[in-house]
Amino acid sequence: MPAFHEIDHVAGDPADFQDPAYREAVVDLLGAISYGEISAFERLAEDAKMAPTIRDKVALASMAAAELGHVGRLHERLTELGTDPFDAMAAFIEPIEKFHRHTAPSDWHEGLVKAFVGDGLAADFYREIAAYLDAATRDLVIAALEDTGQADFVVDRIRAAIAAQPSLAGRLALWGRRLMGEALTQAQRVAADRDALTALLAGGVDRPGLDLAALGRMFARITERHAERMAELGLAS
Amino acid sequence: MPAFHEIDHVAGDPADFQDPAYREAVVDLLGAISYGEISAFERLAEDAKMAPTIRDKVALASMAAAELGHVGRLHERLTELGTDPFDAMAAFIEPIEKFHRHTAPSDWHEGLVKAFVGDGLAADFYREIAAYLDAATRDLVIAALEDTGQADFVVDRIRAAIAAQPSLAGRLALWGRRLMGEALTQAQRVAADRDALTALLAGGVDRPGLDLAALGRMFARITERHAERMAELGLAS
Repeated sequence: MPAFHEIDHVAGDPADFQDPAYREAVVDLLGAISYGEISAFERLAEDAKMAPTIRDKVALASMAAAELGHVGRLHERLTELGTDPFDAMAAFIEPIEKFHRHTAPSDWHEGLVKAFVGDGLAADFYREIAAYLDAATRDLVIAALEDTGQADFVVDRIRAAIAAQPSLAGRLALWGRRLMGEALTQAQRVAADRDALTALLAGGVDRPGLDLAALGRMFARITERHAERMAELGLAS
Repeated sequence: MPAFHEIDHVAGDPADFQDPAYREAVVDLLGAISYGEISAFERLAEDAKMAPTIRDKVALASMAAAELGHVGRLHERLTELGTDPFDAMAAFIEPIEKFHRHTAPSDWHEGLVKAFVGDGLAADFYREIAAYLDAATRDLVIAALEDTGQADFVVDRIRAAIAAQPSLAGRLALWGRRLMGEALTQAQRVAADRDALTALLAGGVDRPGLDLAALGRMFARITERHAERMAELGLAS
């Protein structure tokens, strides 16, 4: 996670909720994160079936449960904002399901890399957006993205697998690139559809936003951290 | 959950851990509960796929995550007792998996009834055994069996389904009987295989146990509570 001073940081404040566009953007964001976690739960629980041992299965299942554990607080907040959480999630079901359909792991190791890299990418992206939010919403988003506590487990398993079978590294590196590509495709699709979210990043009358240069820096930070994660796994990015 | 005074209650104390047979029984019990929760996680996550709405899916997925959430503390305690948690679970994998194979729900409603009735049966049974344990182990077991917070949801959904389609009641009542029968079959199998656990109930040189009359009362309590749960769902038992 980057320190906050690295982010082009312009936090809103609670008064922002008077602005319907701001409120809509927050509802979108919490809805997207909620459905992302529900969907991550489903996929991780499914991938856990491919685990070679019960120990490994429990580790992946615990990541799944941790994802779902964040949803309750996000839904409470959506309800406080006067929105049905399930309505808030509706627009994000298709892009998130599409992401998963296009990145269905074909074996245990692809599942592990997806859990680690996918979770990291989503967290980085939402954290960047969180910098444009009021403090209470930002804290909520950051708590919801808390890491699922199994990163060491994934790194350990992938490094051991590559040591035992070096040819795996090439395939998994390609897989990491595919995950990144598909995530960008779906994020772009969401950006095109959800004006309020995009407007949040672009700023408003009384709220400075990202200019093109800042957007470029944000993108650079996200890809850089993706490369760091791949390196941690012993993979080229 | 019955009040403790209803149970033929003979709690052990920490000195009991000097007795290798007592320690073995506790390790067995914690291992069985742990694997039961891991396995419940898997099955509930799988059954959640049959949910008619995302709302329902999230409710069942939350039950799954709650089951898994209890495993960490049980495994810690097994480690404190000097046992690898995965070794402690090994003997219980086959009977528990057999239970699930023989009771695979064929639709969403059977899945809901299984979640509610199966969880309740397991909790009642382990709580009865917990009465024969030292206070620390008993508290741990009871915390691990805390209800997964979705009982109202299941009752509501099943009652609504029966109101909409009364013929469902007969099929689900039979299903509840099958769940009970299969649970007893597997419990009996475990009792035959695991001497330490059985000895715990039977008592020891310096520890009173269950006589046949007390065993009968325990069985009566468990079947009675099963009948209460079925009635809560609007089903005959």
